[in-house]
Amino acid sequence: MEEKNYESVGEFKDKIKQLEEIIGYTFKDKSLLLAAITHRSFVAEYHKKIQDYEVLEFLGDAVISLIISEILIKQFPYAREGELSQYRSAIVSEAYLSKLARNVNFQDFVLISKGEKYQKGAERESLLCDVFEAVFGAIYTDCQYNLDIPREIFNKNFKEIVINDIQQENLPRDYKSLLQIETQRLYGKIPTYKLISSEGPEHDKTFTVECHVEEIKTTGKGKSKKEAEAKAAKEAFKKLKSEGKQE
Amino acid sequence: MEEKNYESVGEFKDKIKQLEEIIGYTFKDKSLLLAAITHRSFVAEYHKKIQDYEVLEFLGDAVISLIISEILIKQFPYAREGELSQYRSAIVSEAYLSKLARNVNFQDFVLISKGEKYQKGAERESLLCDVFEAVFGAIYTDCQYNLDIPREIFNKNFKEIVINDIQQENLPRDYKSLLQIETQRLYGKIPTYKLISSEGPEHDKTFTVECHVEEIKTTGKGKSKKEAEAKAAKEAFKKLKSEGKQE
Repeated sequence: MEEKNYESVGEFKDKIKQLEEIIGYTFKDKSLLLAAITHRSFVAEYHKKIQDYEVLEFLGDAVISLIISEILIKQFPYAREGELSQYRSAIVSEAYLSKLARNVNFQDFVLISKGEKYQKGAERESLLCDVFEAVFGAIYTDCQYNLDIPREIFNKNFKEIVINDIQQENLPRDYKSLLQIETQRLYGKIPTYKLISSEGPEHDKTFTVECHVEEIKTTGKGKSKKEAEAKAAKEAFKKLKSEGKQE
Repeated sequence: MEEKNYESVGEFKDKIKQLEEIIGYTFKDKSLLLAAITHRSFVAEYHKKIQDYEVLEFLGDAVISLIISEILIKQFPYAREGELSQYRSAIVSEAYLSKLARNVNFQDFVLISKGEKYQKGAERESLLCDVFEAVFGAIYTDCQYNLDIPREIFNKNFKEIVINDIQQENLPRDYKSLLQIETQRLYGKIPTYKLISSEGPEHDKTFTVECHVEEIKTTGKGKSKKEAEAKAAKEAFKKLKSEGKQE
């Protein structure tokens, strides 16, 4: 993160200001927020030196995980660890964080290459989730690792939504875990996942994964192996349930 | 975490004091530290109401992950996200955190049932890793979610060891990832893992997992499925390398 984006901040001044207003935080170092919305593909295309979001995402991932852990512990003081962990992994997931990002229109701010944009790259879940995490990594860096600030920003913007989604059972379900619990109960076995193919250009691959357990075999497609596995697991879980294997 | 351990703090006064000296932190609420070293098996056996470490471990896991992320970013300002993530997952692993725990003799403080103790429970990696995380969860809770305190404690006790282990390449290797990278390169496939058996009493199960990819089939045993998979992956990785599949 040593190469800063100072040179380019002026050019994206309006975008940065608008985003600051949405988040409710004014950056001392605007180049951090610029980096947080910059996808790797944009770096190659852009005519000036610019930093992408990847390291900020690495940091933001840990920041959000801790903030969510605190929310959960305070909200459910009598919950056991297993339940809290299930909530946390459902919340700190691509599917859910990208939903929160969409809530505040982060998709309008992402800087990606023209090629990626054409493929609706900015709308892809994983990219939005990355940017969401990177923005919190940027806030945390900007306030010199004082967690109070990103925690306050998160709580003000998203805490109520998160708690509401927990109560309404609106969290994405982790079908890989659900399936595994179910097949262990029924067959004493866990499903296996096999990568069948990965097609398309480097920046826009589609992965196909096969999920297999006993007589059940399903496939899932996705923009990441994780996504493809989750879809294959969901299909297998539905099959298991529809075949009435409840005994 | 609402049921406190106040009743039992007196009984374990010396243990708590000794541990506080090792860590270099004096708890306002001693019952938190007592909970952090209490394994579930001890709760059943003990004659008073006592809280186990599980929720503190859930929190501590996120605390340590953030502290490690900061150390890595400051230490390697030019590293890419991929490299940082690899370091982080190697450090925030059962194998590595239990090593740090052993460094400060946490194994002497764990409260477990007589049955577990007989099976050398306290020395098991996963338990030590749990307690290590729980202690940091307890510190974080005790200082009312002020990250500065656990960060300072961690850095004073462990930062130098961690940085040294990175530089000396002493971090545990993630054989599942290494194997996957290698088999994708060679066969365009990822390995599959199958649970073959889980044997022994509930609190002391041994899992056997089979790893399979192309003509290579290995097994691994461990106290958790994760550990068994890692061992099977390590064997498969070694096989792949010894057969000279470097083309």
